[in-house]
Amino acid sequence: MKKTYLLTPGPTPIPENVLALSAKPILHHRTPQFVKLMEDVKVQLKYVFQTKNDVLLLASTGTGAMDAAVTNLFKKGDTVITLNAGKFGERWTKIAKAYGLNPVEIKVEPGQSVTVGQVEQALNKNPNTRGVLFQASETSTGVAMPTREICDLVRKRENCISVVDAITALGVFDLRMDEWGIDVLITGSQKALMLPPGLACISLSDKAWKWSESSDIPKFYFDLAKERKALAKGQTAWTPAVSIIIGLQETLKMIKDEGLENVFKRHETLARATRAGIKALGLEMLAKDSPSIAMTAVLVPSEIKDGKGIPKTMRDKYGVTIAGGQDELEGKIFRLTHFGYVDKFDILIGIGALELTLKDLGYTKFEFGAGTGAVLKALASS
Amino acid sequence: MKKTYLLTPGPTPIPENVLALSAKPILHHRTPQFVKLMEDVKVQLKYVFQTKNDVLLLASTGTGAMDAAVTNLFKKGDTVITLNAGKFGERWTKIAKAYGLNPVEIKVEPGQSVTVGQVEQALNKNPNTRGVLFQASETSTGVAMPTREICDLVRKRENCISVVDAITALGVFDLRMDEWGIDVLITGSQKALMLPPGLACISLSDKAWKWSESSDIPKFYFDLAKERKALAKGQTAWTPAVSIIIGLQETLKMIKDEGLENVFKRHETLARATRAGIKALGLEMLAKDSPSIAMTAVLVPSEIKDGKGIPKTMRDKYGVTIAGGQDELEGKIFRLTHFGYVDKFDILIGIGALELTLKDLGYTKFEFGAGTGAVLKALASS
Repeated sequence: MKKTYLLTPGPTPIPENVLALSAKPILHHRTPQFVKLMEDVKVQLKYVFQTKNDVLLLASTGTGAMDAAVTNLFKKGDTVITLNAGKFGERWTKIAKAYGLNPVEIKVEPGQSVTVGQVEQALNKNPNTRGVLFQASETSTGVAMPTREICDLVRKRENCISVVDAITALGVFDLRMDEWGIDVLITGSQKALMLPPGLACISLSDKAWKWSESSDIPKFYFDLAKERKALAKGQTAWTPAVSIIIGLQETLKMIKDEGLENVFKRHETLARATRAGIKALGLEMLAKDSPSIAMTAVLVPSEIKDGKGIPKTMRDKYGVTIAGGQDELEGKIFRLTHFGYVDKFDILIGIGALELTLKDLGYTKFEFGAGTGAVLKALASS
Repeated sequence: MKKTYLLTPGPTPIPENVLALSAKPILHHRTPQFVKLMEDVKVQLKYVFQTKNDVLLLASTGTGAMDAAVTNLFKKGDTVITLNAGKFGERWTKIAKAYGLNPVEIKVEPGQSVTVGQVEQALNKNPNTRGVLFQASETSTGVAMPTREICDLVRKRENCISVVDAITALGVFDLRMDEWGIDVLITGSQKALMLPPGLACISLSDKAWKWSESSDIPKFYFDLAKERKALAKGQTAWTPAVSIIIGLQETLKMIKDEGLENVFKRHETLARATRAGIKALGLEMLAKDSPSIAMTAVLVPSEIKDGKGIPKTMRDKYGVTIAGGQDELEGKIFRLTHFGYVDKFDILIGIGALELTLKDLGYTKFEFGAGTGAVLKALASS
């Protein structure tokens, strides 16, 4: 018998009361009952997105919403700046290319964040830039981007919009869509919204909606104007992911009840406790200057030759699933995630399982309890 | 948002796959489907009870089965020896009195176990004793009784049977009903069988069935002969607790798949890890000589005046429910349970929450991580 724990950057754990909703009879979507559900979800999503704009629901993952942002807002040949601080930044470049845009990519080393200065320089060099596409939190490296400052730069330019992938950021830390002038904000259900994968959320500012009017890229499933019209009637253009939306109503209520500020504080506490544990074990984070509080990417210590062994042992021997590194970071880092339906003792488990794993793999320069003790100390002082 | 954890001696946590069965349509009990279920459960229960005898299912808690044991096996005026090492031993005395038996009680101090010598002496003093009634594991103090040795004494006497309350023992540690000559063995669903409360299991040896023939105490609901007849047809005498029995089929399969020996080993490991944590925090166990591996009863340290504050703070501030002391032990001990659907990281959580709680309540003579470190060390060496 082995219990299992999930500390990956998505899917994240789902609250028991939300899982229980899956056992309720399914709802048909073209009914007044569904419209009532959507009207509630619409209001609550605006609270989490910190916007007065509509938040559209797509039956897709977050990548679908990224695809939709590009096809709905831009024209073939448009110059866009993409910020590549890792795998998900690179994805913006790939999507832009796939639809015939002209992406100017700012690429930084893994673990680094793109600076506002770099973005400003690129904007000055490419004055015809129609959009800046980036991640609020780069999931592959655990880096946070200066979202507020970048959006501030962009909002001053009449011919440019900001497109923010907040898939592992929304509901984790503060992102004020309207106040900061974020033009497009995207998230997915299996992250801080604490739901199964299969639902994406996207919101557009008035400025972004204007962009959509001149878009010439063909689209059908991801036609945001059509979604906007449907949403006005409490509907979606196509069959919605009904069961996930039923769950969404519940998780949005949980977030509202806890209060966004408290949700952010909780995530900060969990990040601090995790990092105290990591440091006490003599380990180093990949993101030194600008870590995202969504996750902690840790460098595999030189004493461990098989870096992939860390997530493997944690999962197969101890039942704790964490993420390894992707692409060129494979075997070089491992990622402990601490957002969504995660609380203090999940961190204790993560660091406890890590202690057992490190000793198993031959990294022994710590006493058992060093990491968990630092976690408890950080929790006690928060 | 706060997750909750259950480390009490019952109810204990229920596996997710068993909880999910509650969402399945209910089954009617007078059907071939239910009979098929019962036939499977019958076989698997014998494995867990380590007996060839029938294991009867009662729609009651364990106390109902204790009541049934007395009313079905004895006659008014019968002398029985009851072993009172705590609240549950005392319950045997109370039940015996309620039905007009003549209980001779051996009472020991809380934390002590009754010795075989004491039982032998009492048997010699009361040669007409028709039963010895006791707990394999006394839940109120965390003490284990010398079950094998006591039953060995009793089996040599033609006019006496052993009646063992194994409510927090069966499926926790080794109890060989047939091999050791246990005459009556009792458990409840909400313990190591990992189910909701509401179902009791009781098995009788051939010798015990003979006792039942001469019983003159009136009974109706708890008529074990009637239950035995019903069970032969894959039924119960009265409406069975269907949903718990559906869950029982699943948890019995889990126990069979893990293997009884491994189940016992797991509980031993968890008990050892818990006790390593307790010791490292400078705390003492109530049961010094003969602790049950089902739970760890810990003395409230003198530095903490309000002993009831420990379970209260753990539950209300940290979401970890443990048990306090009962009756005269109230405020003097607290009990961490480690059986059933419990694994290594539950122990880490229990000791971690205890560290936070102890500091909160002014017991500070340890460094954070002392307890959890000892837990991890014990787990690593098991």
